[in-house]
Amino acid sequence: MELHEDAVASVEALPLDGIVVLDLSQFLAGPSCALRLADLGAKVIKVERPAGGDTGRSLELAGQRFGDASALFHTINRNKQSYAADLKDPTERARVEALVRRADVVVHNFRPGVMDRLGLGYERIAELNPRIVYAGVSGYGDTGPWRDRPGQDLLLQALSGMATLSGDRDQPPMPAALAIVDMTAGAQLAIGILSLLVRRGVTGRGGRVDVSLLDAAVDLQFEPLTVFLNGGGAPERGVRNANVYLPAPYGIYDTADGHLALAMMPVDTLGEVIGNARLAAWPSDQWLGERDAIKAEVAGHLATGTSEYWLGLLEAAGLWVAPVLDWPALLDQPGFKALDAIQTIHSGGETMRTTSSPIRIDGHRLKARAPRRGLAKAMRGSMPNWVSRR
Amino acid sequence: MELHEDAVASVEALPLDGIVVLDLSQFLAGPSCALRLADLGAKVIKVERPAGGDTGRSLELAGQRFGDASALFHTINRNKQSYAADLKDPTERARVEALVRRADVVVHNFRPGVMDRLGLGYERIAELNPRIVYAGVSGYGDTGPWRDRPGQDLLLQALSGMATLSGDRDQPPMPAALAIVDMTAGAQLAIGILSLLVRRGVTGRGGRVDVSLLDAAVDLQFEPLTVFLNGGGAPERGVRNANVYLPAPYGIYDTADGHLALAMMPVDTLGEVIGNARLAAWPSDQWLGERDAIKAEVAGHLATGTSEYWLGLLEAAGLWVAPVLDWPALLDQPGFKALDAIQTIHSGGETMRTTSSPIRIDGHRLKARAPRRGLAKAMRGSMPNWVSRR
Repeated sequence: MELHEDAVASVEALPLDGIVVLDLSQFLAGPSCALRLADLGAKVIKVERPAGGDTGRSLELAGQRFGDASALFHTINRNKQSYAADLKDPTERARVEALVRRADVVVHNFRPGVMDRLGLGYERIAELNPRIVYAGVSGYGDTGPWRDRPGQDLLLQALSGMATLSGDRDQPPMPAALAIVDMTAGAQLAIGILSLLVRRGVTGRGGRVDVSLLDAAVDLQFEPLTVFLNGGGAPERGVRNANVYLPAPYGIYDTADGHLALAMMPVDTLGEVIGNARLAAWPSDQWLGERDAIKAEVAGHLATGTSEYWLGLLEAAGLWVAPVLDWPALLDQPGFKALDAIQTIHSGGETMRTTSSPIRIDGHRLKARAPRRGLAKAMRGSMPNWVSRR
Repeated sequence: MELHEDAVASVEALPLDGIVVLDLSQFLAGPSCALRLADLGAKVIKVERPAGGDTGRSLELAGQRFGDASALFHTINRNKQSYAADLKDPTERARVEALVRRADVVVHNFRPGVMDRLGLGYERIAELNPRIVYAGVSGYGDTGPWRDRPGQDLLLQALSGMATLSGDRDQPPMPAALAIVDMTAGAQLAIGILSLLVRRGVTGRGGRVDVSLLDAAVDLQFEPLTVFLNGGGAPERGVRNANVYLPAPYGIYDTADGHLALAMMPVDTLGEVIGNARLAAWPSDQWLGERDAIKAEVAGHLATGTSEYWLGLLEAAGLWVAPVLDWPALLDQPGFKALDAIQTIHSGGETMRTTSSPIRIDGHRLKARAPRRGLAKAMRGSMPNWVSRR
């Protein structure tokens, strides 16, 4: 797909134009927050250790690298500038403090206490710049017995109960194979930061926002966890599981040539539409309690026909159904291409395809743009900007 | 757990105090966005159909109801006020227009074209109130061949490729049993809204933000999808799958009495720590390509000891590991209790336990507070406020 520079150009002012973010965070949760702010127009200066930089530079998926760092690192840090500073060196920290005075937001995800030991705790930062928004991601909050545990996505899926919700009855706990806790924490941190920038517009003063990965993992489970907290009973994964508390047929089923997802729908209507008398007659007061038996009946029936055949029947009846697509099939769909979700970014002569911000502003899809250099010129020892727009 | 009213009281000003949000959305994506704005202090007025209200009122998990509606509905709509209006009735729409003139944000998740047909399209709303932020969630964007498909979380997990990433090699596509697409779309919409409120503070004018569920689903996959887009090869789920592109041992394993999650760690170090010579000698250039064999070796070894035994060894070595907990075990942990994540909300004499906003502001956990009644008094036909703080 091509670049759509005009789309960017025609957004007169990106919402966060003029906002400066100092990003001291590593890996995913903090950087994904700063990424979204950058997508929306903020100037994000990523402060990295001089030796090696962000640890995420060496975290490779499928062993993939892109120029000077892992492809994953470039993916998460598009649209940012890099500034190398040893925060333990007083001279270099003083330079960072000069940046703090000019910044609107500081983001970090050090373990509790580290920023204080570096002389960059909230009180010190607020003293340097009372208008600043100070944002931190922790694993488990600043207090409590878990505060020093490693905060990593899969570990949070395990500890928070989330892994016990997915997968089928006879399987081990099943994590989502995506860093959904990190990404949720990053998004919630961005919400908190922006809410404090809104408040600053009224009061003139900054503030502090904190999100822990554990809080993010709990928030992701707020629907079913609330059921449990109010006496809804232990979560049961059952078969064809897609929600521990929803009745049949909610789940994914094999067809003769693929897979279909069935969302909420009346079992009797489903039976009528696909021509299964047992389902058509199944009493509605059993759709939850007998859902495994119903799902087994649905599975046996759908396995006898193709996805296209069942989709034709189910969609014509207005039922909520979709085929399961893999990425090659998805990327080939006109419905996906119409989104214009893929963009090409450039770094040191190499090009890389990645996704775009999911947020459209004033009707326009936002794509990466070249970092502006105003502040960068003032920096000593800065690493090369690694993202630029052709 | 008790209410912590003092925590709320000691936040001098919630960040979004004074912001008025008109929430025309239903079910989860839009309402979860408005919920977070309410948690942060916005006054959220939920506009519902006079007959039956939000369809979400009848969407029950585990058949659970709470007073006048499903427990799920109360969970998602805490901290909001309700206003009943038939948007198809000119007189009642005129009253909603009066609210639009006084609001800062409008949120909707109607299918494309519906708001225009109701006379509440962007142009009309911006004419009524040029300072307003107009926010919409769609399933698949406003254009393209999928625009009229049902936008529902499980269907998006299926269509977007996400379901093909989780679960093990021999299993059907495996969805996350949480509405992660809805929640991501809601969070990203909130980010977009707040960024436009920041811009409004500078320019004085409002704007428009749109997020589709499909864009949100793509964004959730941005890490591995970028690998794929740049020639990283087809995603392979393998065994003990927790990421299609990460090397062994990343995944969840059975122990003699439970389950452990192992995050990124060197296979040879793992072998040394747990006393497995084959793992200790496994060449590092095979940790990705031979990961299924390595994971099988890890699984066989860890099944011979208890979780506590292995945790002791692995944590002492500084490796990233965690036990898999279910909700009863989680809720019992001092590390969880220290979060103070659970709150009690009240509605019409009944009480309900649920989770809190994951965002801490100025060091304080935010809890639900009573809706303020200033605007509500001006409303005719409003439904009872259903959330209040003791």
